[in-house]
Amino acid sequence: MIKYSIIYYGDEMRLNKTASLGLINYGKRGMTLEDDINQTNKFYLIQNQAVIYKKPTPITIVKVNYPNREHAVIKEAYFKTPSTTDYNGIYKGKYIDFEAKETKLSSFPLSNIHEHQISHLRKIVEHGGIGFLIVRFIKENKTYFLEASKLFNFLETETRKSIPISYFTENGFIIPDKYQPRVDYLKVIDKLYKGDLL
Amino acid sequence: MIKYSIIYYGDEMRLNKTASLGLINYGKRGMTLEDDINQTNKFYLIQNQAVIYKKPTPITIVKVNYPNREHAVIKEAYFKTPSTTDYNGIYKGKYIDFEAKETKLSSFPLSNIHEHQISHLRKIVEHGGIGFLIVRFIKENKTYFLEASKLFNFLETETRKSIPISYFTENGFIIPDKYQPRVDYLKVIDKLYKGDLL
Repeated sequence: MIKYSIIYYGDEMRLNKTASLGLINYGKRGMTLEDDINQTNKFYLIQNQAVIYKKPTPITIVKVNYPNREHAVIKEAYFKTPSTTDYNGIYKGKYIDFEAKETKLSSFPLSNIHEHQISHLRKIVEHGGIGFLIVRFIKENKTYFLEASKLFNFLETETRKSIPISYFTENGFIIPDKYQPRVDYLKVIDKLYKGDLL
Repeated sequence: MIKYSIIYYGDEMRLNKTASLGLINYGKRGMTLEDDINQTNKFYLIQNQAVIYKKPTPITIVKVNYPNREHAVIKEAYFKTPSTTDYNGIYKGKYIDFEAKETKLSSFPLSNIHEHQISHLRKIVEHGGIGFLIVRFIKENKTYFLEASKLFNFLETETRKSIPISYFTENGFIIPDKYQPRVDYLKVIDKLYKGDLL
């Protein structure tokens, strides 16, 4: 039996037959939540479960050099504040939209999400999409799925500037750490929208 | 009566009361299709009709300078081939996904769309999303909406490397040039999916 593994090089991913070069990620500690989610999304894509991508980082390009036709080099550019969340796509006919953040604290600082990302999530839910947060508490080694509605609920009823982990425990769902896919958030969606999806 | 106009500065847009400074776009010729679609999407957003964005240009960042905490400057970066189409979002609960291109020719060269953008559109349709192309023929001053299925149909039945404008006339829909929104592609979707949307 040939075992296939997903190997992840920066932004590229391939299915490889052998676990050569020590590049395979399974078991690898110290991966960021972003890496884990990108790999999860690529796994979903290969399995034809869903089509979900991280949006590229928004930048303003000021200067580009063209040493030759093929190889443009950006020489000056600036980071822009994103107007939307980082991830979106489609799952079982449904529009999916979420933001993912990790924190070393035991409480999730709301300053980690931009005001317009929150209003973006409000619009998504209003238009019939599935919006949520994925938050990883690094020290606790726990990753949570929190529906956008629960986030709005916190913002409306609380004055605190950060969401305690207990709020996630009570109102969200743990996403178990798995080998593959690493952050299986679609399982939470299946549970939440049982029967409502295609 | 106060008239509001959408003013578009690069990536920013504001609603302004007066037509000062000659910055207002209506009637302005020589705007690119991308500008027109961005403005259309902003109009849809303000009107709360749909939430559709252009994805940022995907780049690989190699070098960043931090002269101070607030102002990171990207000093070296490269353009990446996009894995997806440029635009996606949600309309009446439906996942929307499209690519927009303009051409000076009387036939749309298929080389304008990357292979993986086509397979991306295939996946979108397969997963229940609404996928399409918006193609503008500059000389003819005509903008067409072509459903992804019609694009696939052309690819399967034709060997030509470009799609003649007649194929768009027969299989697509003209998007009339309007004052606001400039490229009202949601109207075509309404016509196509009558009753199927929320």
